[in-house]
Amino acid sequence: MENEESKTWAMVGGDGPRSYAQNSSYQRGLVEVANESMSEGIMDKLEFNNPCSDSSNIFTFRIADFGCSVGPNTFVAVEKIIEAVEQKHRAQFRSSPPMEFQVFFNDVTANDFNTLFKTLPASKKYFAAGVPGTFYGRLFPKSTLHLAYSSYSLHWLSRVPDEVVDSKSPAWNKGSIQCSGTAKEVAKAYSAQFKRDMDNFLKARAEEIIGGGLMVIMIGGLPDGIMMAQTSAGIFNELFGSCLVDLAKMGLVSEEKVDAFNLPAYYSSAKELEDIIKNNGHFCIERMSTLDHPMMKMKVDVRLAISHFRAVFQGLLEKHFGKDDADRIFQHFPKFAENYDSVINGATHQHVDHFILLKRNIN
Amino acid sequence: MENEESKTWAMVGGDGPRSYAQNSSYQRGLVEVANESMSEGIMDKLEFNNPCSDSSNIFTFRIADFGCSVGPNTFVAVEKIIEAVEQKHRAQFRSSPPMEFQVFFNDVTANDFNTLFKTLPASKKYFAAGVPGTFYGRLFPKSTLHLAYSSYSLHWLSRVPDEVVDSKSPAWNKGSIQCSGTAKEVAKAYSAQFKRDMDNFLKARAEEIIGGGLMVIMIGGLPDGIMMAQTSAGIFNELFGSCLVDLAKMGLVSEEKVDAFNLPAYYSSAKELEDIIKNNGHFCIERMSTLDHPMMKMKVDVRLAISHFRAVFQGLLEKHFGKDDADRIFQHFPKFAENYDSVINGATHQHVDHFILLKRNIN
Repeated sequence: MENEESKTWAMVGGDGPRSYAQNSSYQRGLVEVANESMSEGIMDKLEFNNPCSDSSNIFTFRIADFGCSVGPNTFVAVEKIIEAVEQKHRAQFRSSPPMEFQVFFNDVTANDFNTLFKTLPASKKYFAAGVPGTFYGRLFPKSTLHLAYSSYSLHWLSRVPDEVVDSKSPAWNKGSIQCSGTAKEVAKAYSAQFKRDMDNFLKARAEEIIGGGLMVIMIGGLPDGIMMAQTSAGIFNELFGSCLVDLAKMGLVSEEKVDAFNLPAYYSSAKELEDIIKNNGHFCIERMSTLDHPMMKMKVDVRLAISHFRAVFQGLLEKHFGKDDADRIFQHFPKFAENYDSVINGATHQHVDHFILLKRNIN
Repeated sequence: MENEESKTWAMVGGDGPRSYAQNSSYQRGLVEVANESMSEGIMDKLEFNNPCSDSSNIFTFRIADFGCSVGPNTFVAVEKIIEAVEQKHRAQFRSSPPMEFQVFFNDVTANDFNTLFKTLPASKKYFAAGVPGTFYGRLFPKSTLHLAYSSYSLHWLSRVPDEVVDSKSPAWNKGSIQCSGTAKEVAKAYSAQFKRDMDNFLKARAEEIIGGGLMVIMIGGLPDGIMMAQTSAGIFNELFGSCLVDLAKMGLVSEEKVDAFNLPAYYSSAKELEDIIKNNGHFCIERMSTLDHPMMKMKVDVRLAISHFRAVFQGLLEKHFGKDDADRIFQHFPKFAENYDSVINGATHQHVDHFILLKRNIN
C-alpha cells in the first residue's frame, strides 16, 4: 500500500491571486459544460443495488473526486453529482429510504488540503474527507465507492518518460518540452506512458468501485488525427519552451535543466482512450463525447493564459528548477510571450475535452 | 451538517522545534502506557458481526482517531489498534476472510492536515483519510465506524463557558485562567460545559459507530476529591495566569484580554465521566481505569513543560491575544517561571489519565 509518488507537485495552494483556486476558470467552465451530460448519465445509468451500510437502514453513498486540487471547482461538481444521485434515488424509490453521502477529495500528498478543508461549503450536504496520494495506485478499500469522478487530471502523467529527456535515446525530445506530435518516437514514448498510467488508474478504480458503480471522467485530449503542435495550447507550450531556451542562452537558468525539462502531460485521442478502456476490461463505456467549452471559441487572452499556466505549473517548475529560477522564469515569460499573441491565436485547431461515463462491470 | 466550530485553534503544525509533533512526548507516553489495556480490551470485547462491504467478500474495518493532531502519536496508536484487531480476527476466524483497514484522522479544520498527510508512515497497512471538523458534532455517515479512538483530546472544551469570563456573573473566574476547583460557581460552570460537550460527542459517535463497535478514550482527569489547584499541572497553569497578569501590569499585553482569558479545558473525575456515559445511554462501559504514566513520577522539568505547553496553546493564545502578544507572552514566561520550580514540584497531587473502553449498544 506504499505510494511511490512521482508526481509530487501540485496546483498552487491557498487562495491568493496566484492560487489555482483563483486561476482555474477554464476547469470551472468544464464543470458547467459537462453538467448536463453528467446529470443525464447518472439519471440514466445509476442503479441502487447495494444498499448496504453495515448495520443500519441508512444507506451511505460514497463519492470520490480523483485530482480535486484545492477547490472550489470540486465543490461545484460534487454538489451537481449529489443532486443527480438524489433525483435518481427519488425516481427509483417513491418512499425514499434515507441516504447519506460521504465525499472523498483526493489529490497528491503535496496538494494544499488545509485550504481545501477551510473552504468546504458551510451548506454542504455530505460528510467530507481528504485522501492524499497518487490516483495511479490504490487509495480506497475494495468495493467501497459508488461514484468516482475525475476532471481535468488524467492527462497528467505519473512521470515524464525517461527516453524523451535522454540525449542518447531515439525518443529524445530535443528542442521541445511537450509531446508536440511531430516527432514519432517522442509521441510513442509519451503515448506508452499514458497507456501505463491510465491502465493503472482503471485497475485501481476497478478494485474500489462497486459492481454497477459509475465513473465520470473529463480529460484534455485531441481530435483524431490532430497533433498538439497544431493547437493553441500546444503552441503556447512550445512558446514556454522557447522562453526557457532564451533564459538559458542568457545564462539566467541552467541549460542542462532546460534540456531535461518536459511537461508530464499527454493529450489523447478518443480512439486511444477507447482502446485503453476496452483493453483494461473492467468498465463498460456508457457515454463518450467531446465537450463544447465556450472558451474554445474565444480569442486566447495571453496574459490570462499565463496566470492559469502558472497556477498549474509553478509547483512543477519549482521542483525542477528551484524556487528562485521558477520565479525568474515567470517574470520573463509574460514579456517573452507578448509578441506572440497572433501566433497563438493563429492556431488552425484546438485541443478537445473528452467526456466519458463508465460503468464498473459486475463480476 | 454545518459545523459551528468554536474550537478553531489547533496544536502547532509542521515539524519544527516548536511543533506539536516535536513536543508531545507526554501524549506519546500515554499511547505506550495504554497499549496493553487497549490491546487486551480489543481482544476481549471486539466482535466481527457485520462483515458487510457493499458487494465483495472483502471486509473493510473502519477506524477513526478523534483529535489526531499532526502525528506521529496517532500513527503509533493506529498501528497498535490494527495489530490487536488483526490478532482478534485471526483468533475468531481460523481461515481468515480477507480484511482491509480504512483509517480516518480527525481534528479541527485548523489542524495542519498537510503535515499529517506528508508524514503518514510509508509502511502503513491501511487506506488513510483526513476528516476536518469538530468532534462535538457529526463527522461520519450513520453506522460506518467499527472502532473509534480519542487520546488526550476530550478534556478540551468546545468553548470557555461564558459565565467564567463575565464580571457580572457569580461564576466569574477572577484572578485565574482555569477551573482550579477552589471557586464553586466556576467549577459548576466548567463542569456543565464539559457535560454538554461530552454528551454531544457521545451522541454523535453513537450515530456513527455500528452496534457492538468499540470506542477507546484516554482523557486527562483528576482523582476523586482532588482539585486542579492541588496538582502540578494546575499549579503550572496558575503560574501561566500570573505571568499574564504580570505582563498586563507592565502594560505589555491588554489587561482586558487577560481578564477575558480562560483555558477551555476541564479535568474530570472518574465518577463524573461514568455519570455522563450512563446518562447518555448509548454505550456500555467495558473497562475504566487510571493509566500509570511514568512521567507522573518524575520531577517536572519546567523548561520542557513550557515548550510542551507552547506547542498546545500557541494557536489558542494567538487567536485570543494576537500573534505579536502571544510571542511576547512566550518570551516572558520562561523567565517568569524559572523561580517557581520548587512550587510546581511541591504539588501534593497529580492529575490522572483515565482509560475508558466503551462498546456501542446494539439497538
